[in-house]
Amino acid sequence: MKSFIEYEENSDFSIYNIPFGVGIFSDDEIACVTRIGDTVINLAVLYDQGYFDEFNLGENVFEAFTLNEFISLGKSVTVPVREHIQKLLLEGSELSKDEETQLEAFHNIEKVSMQLPVHVPNYTDFYSSIEHATNVGKMFRDPDNALLPNWKHLPVGYHGRASSIVVSGTPIYRPKGQTMPPNADKPVFGPSQRLDFELEMAFITNSYTDLGETISTTEAEDHIFGMVLFNDWSARDVQKWEYVPLGPFLAKNFGSSISPWIVTLEALDPFRVNGPEQEPEVLPYLKYEGKKNFDIHLQTLIQPENGEENLICTSNFKYMYWNMAQQLAHHTVNGCNLEVGDMYASGTISGKTEDSFGSMLELTWSGSKPLKLNDGSERKFIEDNDTVIMRGWCEKDGIRIGFGEVSGKILPAKD
Amino acid sequence: MKSFIEYEENSDFSIYNIPFGVGIFSDDEIACVTRIGDTVINLAVLYDQGYFDEFNLGENVFEAFTLNEFISLGKSVTVPVREHIQKLLLEGSELSKDEETQLEAFHNIEKVSMQLPVHVPNYTDFYSSIEHATNVGKMFRDPDNALLPNWKHLPVGYHGRASSIVVSGTPIYRPKGQTMPPNADKPVFGPSQRLDFELEMAFITNSYTDLGETISTTEAEDHIFGMVLFNDWSARDVQKWEYVPLGPFLAKNFGSSISPWIVTLEALDPFRVNGPEQEPEVLPYLKYEGKKNFDIHLQTLIQPENGEENLICTSNFKYMYWNMAQQLAHHTVNGCNLEVGDMYASGTISGKTEDSFGSMLELTWSGSKPLKLNDGSERKFIEDNDTVIMRGWCEKDGIRIGFGEVSGKILPAKD
Repeated sequence: MKSFIEYEENSDFSIYNIPFGVGIFSDDEIACVTRIGDTVINLAVLYDQGYFDEFNLGENVFEAFTLNEFISLGKSVTVPVREHIQKLLLEGSELSKDEETQLEAFHNIEKVSMQLPVHVPNYTDFYSSIEHATNVGKMFRDPDNALLPNWKHLPVGYHGRASSIVVSGTPIYRPKGQTMPPNADKPVFGPSQRLDFELEMAFITNSYTDLGETISTTEAEDHIFGMVLFNDWSARDVQKWEYVPLGPFLAKNFGSSISPWIVTLEALDPFRVNGPEQEPEVLPYLKYEGKKNFDIHLQTLIQPENGEENLICTSNFKYMYWNMAQQLAHHTVNGCNLEVGDMYASGTISGKTEDSFGSMLELTWSGSKPLKLNDGSERKFIEDNDTVIMRGWCEKDGIRIGFGEVSGKILPAKD
Repeated sequence: MKSFIEYEENSDFSIYNIPFGVGIFSDDEIACVTRIGDTVINLAVLYDQGYFDEFNLGENVFEAFTLNEFISLGKSVTVPVREHIQKLLLEGSELSKDEETQLEAFHNIEKVSMQLPVHVPNYTDFYSSIEHATNVGKMFRDPDNALLPNWKHLPVGYHGRASSIVVSGTPIYRPKGQTMPPNADKPVFGPSQRLDFELEMAFITNSYTDLGETISTTEAEDHIFGMVLFNDWSARDVQKWEYVPLGPFLAKNFGSSISPWIVTLEALDPFRVNGPEQEPEVLPYLKYEGKKNFDIHLQTLIQPENGEENLICTSNFKYMYWNMAQQLAHHTVNGCNLEVGDMYASGTISGKTEDSFGSMLELTWSGSKPLKLNDGSERKFIEDNDTVIMRGWCEKDGIRIGFGEVSGKILPAKD
């Protein structure tokens, strides 16, 4: 496939991707968009010019602040619409000859302010990397019994805060909170001293289900529109003190950052791989067939104020022990209902090697082995004015698609 | 104060209450409403008839599916609007002589289908009763160290699932899930065998705050529109197996039931009482002045299919160790942002005596001391087709206001 829009060979936004997002243009107009190379395409304009007339999209579904309405049309609509957009962007297409529409609909990415792509009614965070769960268990609990007894029987997860999910580029204030210093007899209050990232990915659902309804592992992917990169910022010192017995709370809900482009499951389809063997055998409702893991290369980088990017972690989404179909089947097996735009994060994605760990907690082993940056400084955790960048992409047989990046700068705690 | 609308002396919906809800009428119209005695009053009709002309309410804010827009106007508007409604309902008022408007706006409660009063963007559940936390700690963990070290230093809380909050009267399917039977070597799957209620109350916020913004205990009540009764249904067997280390998940997110009438903090004001002494001393951001607890009588009843109501628990909201101002100050101290309509539940409200425990887990001491019902049957936990009813009211100096009830029937697990 070759597009009439030129882009660099290593672009995440090749003709094979066709992701969805929401952008604000220089005239303050907002619309649903897609992207190829560095060109952002206003889908509301294509709609107005009749390019979606063959679909039953009702009113201009792309003239919206979020993708929720489009996503809610379900895969029977969104899959052919995406394929149609892909064809429109090929050499020789009707759009390739329609300079008037191009002039109105095409914008350079530098001129577009990308927004949160969906309104997120509910956010769940899983804990599905066996390497991450083992590392944290060793440090927070018992080195000899790092993995708790339930971990291999169900995809452990918990509810997070939807209100504080922000789009890439939004700065985050260092949170203040209660912590219990080592050997202290009472807690203290102040800015977190152990501010961390978590390298995650998240999937977004496209349907409303009824209370009491369940979704099988076979059906699950029909309910998943696509994925984003997800940085689950975490204050480790707050977390350690507050998290018993009901789980993380203020240690996490001060902000979570996502990449602005939702890459569809259909774009990711060529990059499916087998998941790890699950032993002991899982209960029947968690069994699945086929390749449900995805080979997505992941990186985390730290960029100090006015400094260079430092690659500090290289991981891969294929390492996940529990896949998305299992996560969604588990989440609904009790009848919990889904909503359109819900976000389900993977949990920190760590691999087996020390350079693949998806958090500072693991990379520096709780601060005991600081990382050295290019400028000679050290990091045990994230410092004020550091920017944390995560990137993700798939590559195979000369075809590349990707997520771009999610970045966030840590500002000093507010007075 | 005397209303021109008659009601029984023991009505929760006296002239002193003036709660807010959302109702559907027999002609399928939906609107924001208030209630006095058994009379539901369509506020959108009063608006159309000019009764709110002195307020700057913009478009008809009561012609809505939820109260969110009205609530978002803030106390500087909602407090005088409520007082105005109260005056309209007094003997001799303009409305008392306007039979045409009465005919259009007044409905008997039997003819109104009450809806979820707000759209809930975020839901948090606290754990603020020291008696409940102690009881659960004894049963789930260590009888000698029931209260975890952080409990008296911060109001422990966690995020719950907003999508599955339903209004009183909505039936709930018994959830299925994974549990680990005693002495078993692997988990089993099936309908929960230990289905429970939790007697709670919840407050609802009226503002959007920015990420990074904090709310002090002094400011907190300005952000609280009012309260409802809250039943945090819980599957104890699922909870026990799943909850480490990230907290309750499927054990809770299959459904939470709330009462349909939001009683404002202003209506509750005469029933303020001092909270319990907090020892050890709390950190400065959790200190507060004045009476922040409320004397609200609470009851839980079980009604078997075609049977009588059985009073099984008598508690009081005044027992709470942590008050709402402290909960909100804690929740935002890290910069977590609020949204209009957010729901913040108290956690199970247990008192010191055995008949005041707010869950079957505590009342039957984990099933070891079954309750006897009027019909001679026993209950260790909630059985299929049982209806659980919670009621709450305040009474002082001859004045009574209340919440009505939240009820929910448990249906057998879906096939």
